[in-house]
Amino acid sequence: MFIRETRFQRFVQAMQRADQLVATGARDDLFEQMLDLMVFATEAEAGVLSLYDKDSQTLVVQAVAGLPRGKDFRSAHGDANQGLAGAVLRRGTALFVADPGRDPRQDWICGAAAASLHVRTVLCQPLMSHGQPLGCVHVFNLPDPPADDRDEPALLSLLSSRLVNEMEKAQILAEAERRERRQRALLEIISNLTTTLDRDELLYRIMSHACELLNVEATSIWLRDPAQDDLVLHIAAGSSRKRIVAQRVPAGQGIIGHVVATGETVAVNDVRRDPRFYQHIDASSGFVTRSILCVPLKAPRIQLGDVRGIAEERIIGGAQALNPRHRSGFVPDDIALFQTLAGQAAAVIRLAQLYSEVSALSTRIIDAITGAIDLKDPYTRGHSQRVSDFSVAIAQELGLSSDEVYRVRIASKLHDVGKIRVPDRILKKRRQLTDAEFAQMRQHPEHGLEFLKENGLLELEVLRESWTALAQHHERLDGRGYPKGLRGDQISLVGRIVAVADVFDAITSHRPYQPARSADEAIAILRSLAGVELDSACVEALVRARAQGLVRTQEERGERDRLSKRRRRPTRRRSVGMAG
Amino acid sequence: MFIRETRFQRFVQAMQRADQLVATGARDDLFEQMLDLMVFATEAEAGVLSLYDKDSQTLVVQAVAGLPRGKDFRSAHGDANQGLAGAVLRRGTALFVADPGRDPRQDWICGAAAASLHVRTVLCQPLMSHGQPLGCVHVFNLPDPPADDRDEPALLSLLSSRLVNEMEKAQILAEAERRERRQRALLEIISNLTTTLDRDELLYRIMSHACELLNVEATSIWLRDPAQDDLVLHIAAGSSRKRIVAQRVPAGQGIIGHVVATGETVAVNDVRRDPRFYQHIDASSGFVTRSILCVPLKAPRIQLGDVRGIAEERIIGGAQALNPRHRSGFVPDDIALFQTLAGQAAAVIRLAQLYSEVSALSTRIIDAITGAIDLKDPYTRGHSQRVSDFSVAIAQELGLSSDEVYRVRIASKLHDVGKIRVPDRILKKRRQLTDAEFAQMRQHPEHGLEFLKENGLLELEVLRESWTALAQHHERLDGRGYPKGLRGDQISLVGRIVAVADVFDAITSHRPYQPARSADEAIAILRSLAGVELDSACVEALVRARAQGLVRTQEERGERDRLSKRRRRPTRRRSVGMAG
Repeated sequence: MFIRETRFQRFVQAMQRADQLVATGARDDLFEQMLDLMVFATEAEAGVLSLYDKDSQTLVVQAVAGLPRGKDFRSAHGDANQGLAGAVLRRGTALFVADPGRDPRQDWICGAAAASLHVRTVLCQPLMSHGQPLGCVHVFNLPDPPADDRDEPALLSLLSSRLVNEMEKAQILAEAERRERRQRALLEIISNLTTTLDRDELLYRIMSHACELLNVEATSIWLRDPAQDDLVLHIAAGSSRKRIVAQRVPAGQGIIGHVVATGETVAVNDVRRDPRFYQHIDASSGFVTRSILCVPLKAPRIQLGDVRGIAEERIIGGAQALNPRHRSGFVPDDIALFQTLAGQAAAVIRLAQLYSEVSALSTRIIDAITGAIDLKDPYTRGHSQRVSDFSVAIAQELGLSSDEVYRVRIASKLHDVGKIRVPDRILKKRRQLTDAEFAQMRQHPEHGLEFLKENGLLELEVLRESWTALAQHHERLDGRGYPKGLRGDQISLVGRIVAVADVFDAITSHRPYQPARSADEAIAILRSLAGVELDSACVEALVRARAQGLVRTQEERGERDRLSKRRRRPTRRRSVGMAG
Repeated sequence: MFIRETRFQRFVQAMQRADQLVATGARDDLFEQMLDLMVFATEAEAGVLSLYDKDSQTLVVQAVAGLPRGKDFRSAHGDANQGLAGAVLRRGTALFVADPGRDPRQDWICGAAAASLHVRTVLCQPLMSHGQPLGCVHVFNLPDPPADDRDEPALLSLLSSRLVNEMEKAQILAEAERRERRQRALLEIISNLTTTLDRDELLYRIMSHACELLNVEATSIWLRDPAQDDLVLHIAAGSSRKRIVAQRVPAGQGIIGHVVATGETVAVNDVRRDPRFYQHIDASSGFVTRSILCVPLKAPRIQLGDVRGIAEERIIGGAQALNPRHRSGFVPDDIALFQTLAGQAAAVIRLAQLYSEVSALSTRIIDAITGAIDLKDPYTRGHSQRVSDFSVAIAQELGLSSDEVYRVRIASKLHDVGKIRVPDRILKKRRQLTDAEFAQMRQHPEHGLEFLKENGLLELEVLRESWTALAQHHERLDGRGYPKGLRGDQISLVGRIVAVADVFDAITSHRPYQPARSADEAIAILRSLAGVELDSACVEALVRARAQGLVRTQEERGERDRLSKRRRRPTRRRSVGMAG
């Protein structure tokens, strides 16, 4: 009775201590502490707690109590299927063995304990979670005399249950945290994608993020080449980034071809067994593909609004992940993650395509139209492009923001667009212009502004303020320019920039009324006009940009040769600002 | 001793049953079952398990054991601060009371139990998690005789601990699931945003998703109006959607103005106390704002690649959530979620702005340029626009995809762009053209193609195939068109569509050589040419589109009046295809 009493109190004490222990939350020495409690509660002499590793089918020792050479024993591991431990893990319930040295169920943990302890009895208790073994606890040398109705198994079982409970909690928490971390990483990656519409940068980001997220050796993106109907490898990230670039796979071939053709995801954990595997890439890159996860890049149907309407859903390519680093193959979680990433990547790549298409349309059509206007007079060929280049160089030199530089680029390109309303016979005229003709010619800045206004172009951000490039590029600080004779601050910064660029190009280009002068001569002239007709800061910005090689004249661009004839045409006014 | 023995075994049994109970996972009757075990283990007569609700400071009964009228008692609730339970929750440890009826610490649960039981003793055990009370357990009428060293408190404490552990696990799991669900919802919303660049649709989606995600009465988006420097309310979702639209807040005013000016997030759980609150909106809408969560819409720096470069970071507006439905105010989790959503929303709104800006630039510049070319000859004013409209109508009627219709729209608008290379004197000539002039005029389809080619426009998807609109719109099925005399299938679908649109406009417009004919006459002529010069399917598509009001002639558009003079010009060939 006294023994019972004592044991009960010890047990209650052990359980209370276990409660205190777990109440403090996850701790490193939980296994040590729980094992100590188990040995204390069962009044045993020693104990070993080991965890079951399913993949390697081994037991790995986590905690040791009461064994002199316990330290050496920690992290030892051995077969989980044999002997006493093996039987206990299979049964899912405890076993008591007297004199295990002679028992056929002797296991390696008992054997190791016997090295520093005379083992008389052992009680082995599995740690079970939802019918699956997580590990087991061996306690050695329970109090004599052994009894058939001994309480130790029940005590040990209760404490083990408490421990398993704690392990489950930690596992749930860890799993939840892992999932949340991955979700958060995915969210961050996806948010990050929308900060670029630059295709190469975009592809690179997608692939390097995917590499990290999936922890694979390499990832790649294959995009459909609509011109040739095959797939082109655009980016391969991971360790092999440099090895495999600019590869092509004919349409429909390879696993990637299949995925792009069908829109299905394919995961192959041993590519050598898949007849679809297209071996040419490995052959030429030296990369050894073992496992492939291949998902389609399916761009969704995108509402673009306005006249463009809907861009329809299309499969624009596929994304591949190769060789997981710490696993033999891809698991469902990897697949779901890669699909989500690929779906979003496809949407953003498609947005980038749509943007770049319409952006190229706008700039090329502007180039085309201003180029055509310049061509009306063979002496102004390439003029709009050069004035735009020079204006951009000045704007950048003045430290304008990227948004502002873009506005200067577009507006300056259009500075002479009003000439589309000046009759050809005046534009092309070689002889001296009459007063009336000259007046018509000088209307082109106002024509340009009307051109913008009538076509709703002034409402666009790009021209809302920078329309002055068209309207004011012939205005002069001293008020002697046209069409309005504005003075000083009345002329906008953009107007001043384009005026300097325009005059510089007029001086350095061949014109009917004068041969091209050198850039140095032009700069000397600009400087003589600085503060009088032209803005000094803009002139000096052009000079600095020129020093950096950013301002190249008609002659330096080799655009002079194209002029077939060079006849001189007398002008009414020799002001350098008149041309352009 | 016998009592002890029995009690120990009962207790071990109870603990084992508790283990079995929790091993089966979360279950509805966990509280019932655990309370039964507690009553069984402590050999008590009855028990009540109640949970603590922090917000209302009450205890809510979850399980009742051993009380005849237990059913009525379940879900009862009462003050958590008074009496025995109040003391136990404050202390965090159990209290034993003999004859609670006479004890000043009597509480409402004891009182309720006394209604169906003669209560002699009560043991009240708190359910503590990390120092915080989750609830408590009352067990009534423990076995006599009471002893100072009674074990019941220890037993009850251990079982409670087990229950708390289980509750913590369920809570962790529920919290993890809730977070994952919200993350997943956010991810889905964010993925969904990139499927539209249509601003209004985008704003609507953002706001309705935010309303759901945050569970608030209303959400709204305020965008900066760069023209007027104030904030315009664009969308208000939620129940009040119709009530508040098209409101303006002057820059810097109101909480939203503060947020947009500073880029800071502001959460105000009682707006009446915030002097920044701009009351005009509520006053005019009738909506009663209690709590506001206001986050900036900060569009990130976006790499656009190519000539456009970088679009800089800018605060484009702010988003507001008003009045959480089930809480008195906003919690940190809401704030983080709304910020993430707003950040991504801002990025996509900005992409939409950038896209729509450059898209408008491209279409308006094309309109401007084709309009200017049409204007060279006053008789072709508006011609390119009408041909484009008619071509789009035919293409849609033929069931072409949205992508194809867009290509037809752009290419048909440009069909006469080659005329920019035809001298004005020919375009504007009223008298009969000479053979040489006529030959020059007939070069415009080839000029158009060269115009595209030389400026890289053929590389763009929009013109990669549809260039035939320019090159082939004067080709005829019978091979008698120009410039190449292509026949039948040699002429592309786009070429045939634009040919029909072009001829229809030529017939129904006033031209120097003939007055405008009615649409019916034009259709009769088109039908007479169908299958010979013009594609029958395209002609019939135009007829059907006309029946739906989609094809309006120059006269019907009121564009005729603008013609100042109407002189007739004799033509060389009366084929209707010659014009335009």
